[in-house]
Amino acid sequence: MHAARRARAQQQTAAAGADAALITSLVNVRYLTGLASSNAALLLPVSGAAILATDSRYTPAAQRDCPDLELVIDRFTEPALAARAAASGLTAVGFEEHEMTVERHQALTAADGLTLVPLGRLVEGLRMVKDDAEIALLARACQITSESFEAVLAGVWPGRTERELAIALEREMTDRGAEKPAFDTIVASGPNGDTGHHVPTGRPFFAGDLVTIDCGARYAGYHADMTRTVAVGEPAGWQREIYDLVAAAQQAGLAAVTVGADVADVDAAARDLIEAAGHGGHFGHATGHGVGLEIHEAPIISGDRTGRLAAGVPVTVEPGIYLPGRGGVRIEDTLVVRAGPGTIPGELLTTVTRELLVL
Amino acid sequence: MHAARRARAQQQTAAAGADAALITSLVNVRYLTGLASSNAALLLPVSGAAILATDSRYTPAAQRDCPDLELVIDRFTEPALAARAAASGLTAVGFEEHEMTVERHQALTAADGLTLVPLGRLVEGLRMVKDDAEIALLARACQITSESFEAVLAGVWPGRTERELAIALEREMTDRGAEKPAFDTIVASGPNGDTGHHVPTGRPFFAGDLVTIDCGARYAGYHADMTRTVAVGEPAGWQREIYDLVAAAQQAGLAAVTVGADVADVDAAARDLIEAAGHGGHFGHATGHGVGLEIHEAPIISGDRTGRLAAGVPVTVEPGIYLPGRGGVRIEDTLVVRAGPGTIPGELLTTVTRELLVL
Repeated sequence: MHAARRARAQQQTAAAGADAALITSLVNVRYLTGLASSNAALLLPVSGAAILATDSRYTPAAQRDCPDLELVIDRFTEPALAARAAASGLTAVGFEEHEMTVERHQALTAADGLTLVPLGRLVEGLRMVKDDAEIALLARACQITSESFEAVLAGVWPGRTERELAIALEREMTDRGAEKPAFDTIVASGPNGDTGHHVPTGRPFFAGDLVTIDCGARYAGYHADMTRTVAVGEPAGWQREIYDLVAAAQQAGLAAVTVGADVADVDAAARDLIEAAGHGGHFGHATGHGVGLEIHEAPIISGDRTGRLAAGVPVTVEPGIYLPGRGGVRIEDTLVVRAGPGTIPGELLTTVTRELLVL
Repeated sequence: MHAARRARAQQQTAAAGADAALITSLVNVRYLTGLASSNAALLLPVSGAAILATDSRYTPAAQRDCPDLELVIDRFTEPALAARAAASGLTAVGFEEHEMTVERHQALTAADGLTLVPLGRLVEGLRMVKDDAEIALLARACQITSESFEAVLAGVWPGRTERELAIALEREMTDRGAEKPAFDTIVASGPNGDTGHHVPTGRPFFAGDLVTIDCGARYAGYHADMTRTVAVGEPAGWQREIYDLVAAAQQAGLAAVTVGADVADVDAAARDLIEAAGHGGHFGHATGHGVGLEIHEAPIISGDRTGRLAAGVPVTVEPGIYLPGRGGVRIEDTLVVRAGPGTIPGELLTTVTRELLVL
């Protein structure tokens, strides 16, 4: 599996005009080797054997997970691999300019006389379409998330605080097998829901609140992402109104997630409904994003992006409406782009109802 | 407080020959403004008012936490501030080359015709000496960590797993007021303790194990860091031997943490004892590091670094011995460099005993 991924990366590295790729994004190293490390880099010649560098803390993991790779154990992974590249006569070495800092780039250039060739988001591009094994892990992450969300809903009552609910939800995910939360859980109640983002506070829920909960489990490195807004007691007319609008927009967005769809068109499918209702200014973020070894990855589903969806790409669809000082609604699912017919062509990994839950 | 920090940064920016600093490290933005954001940047002219850019998710937080700053609400924080710099006639703009990627650097250079001046770790240097308010927060983080560690010790028994103990410890810290763990808790038992790093597994503890627990709470953004190795049942001779050696090395390291001490000398104080006992090859990491808004920050206490400790700098002292295939010991405290006499000149923030606990 990892060898096949490296073969694809080698082909594209050659096409970019480099003799080798120096992969320094830790997520990309993990994708290409299987090693999860906080200090690692991979030298991937266009032809020949790859060399994985990490420090001694990760020697056992590297020996276990990457038996087919040559290992270099060195705390300074980049200089070590640059020296190996120079010693092997590799002169044009591709690098990840979106990850490499200016400081490290200068050190590499100065130290070894290599010609560094920008590779762009080459590996991120390969990572966009997931194989079945990856989707199985992501589906498990989404299942843990959905079931954990449902398990803690009974804890949404007046007087319970945002922070208490966030902690309960994160513990539920861990108890159900998550490695950890995929990101800091958002619980935003009442007026705190008027931005897309919010750090849970000691604010207690009140009858009449909308509560937006954005959460996800990480499982075997894969990140789930879902959001639901629930009502504490019977919702007011304006609350029901924006909920129904976001639900319709989200449904339209889900329906637009088809093989070959342009990401800007998926964004528009959701956004047009919200704009037509006069709430365009209250939906200030992109409609969705890819998920995988990172919580936000390619493709970004936004009006200012282009690119077509392919089968096997997992994305979120998450429109929202946020009314300053009053509160907001967001509904988010994770689904996988699939070929084939159906009202929702994609394969939904989030299983929680999208009906407004009144608690 | 933040205004005084900005004034110091302005002075050093001027000394670096820049008209303004473009601060893009999110931790440094937080240090200089008080805003904790996942998307923010700060333009700090050498003279005149600073401008803080963040996206609309953080508008309420920025208005609340930074009332004295001009705000720019824009998802693309760096280009927005670069445009403001150009419009203000600021031509030599300092940047953080250890944070800025090659890609973003090229975009900034191309877009606005600014001359970008490397600032180095200017703000990190300012962050090294903590003020009393910061040390109070760090001390609280360390207190939560120490008390949580003591609270879960009763849970170290044969049959309990690494992962169960790690989860219990993280929950204890949260229940005692931590925002979250300062880093992924390490619980390494028996042979798993033979590296400094280990992801907790389902391995149960056995009588005769050494168990190394490396943990910390984050409180108001500040990161505690402590490690203890405990014994499950009476330790064998070799276990007691390496424990006593690490304890002596750690004590020597703590005693060397004085105002004016060179970090290489602090490292040597701990390392020399371990090397003299023939275990130099089993202690493969640095002796310590600064802690604060990041879990690892300046100064690094290592033989290949230079620099003198000043009063008010919190550091860890954490020697270890790791025997391949057998297990290991690490003992780590967080303390603050202080002027004045005493066996341990620094102010210990970790309060757990350093005696070998036999459980």
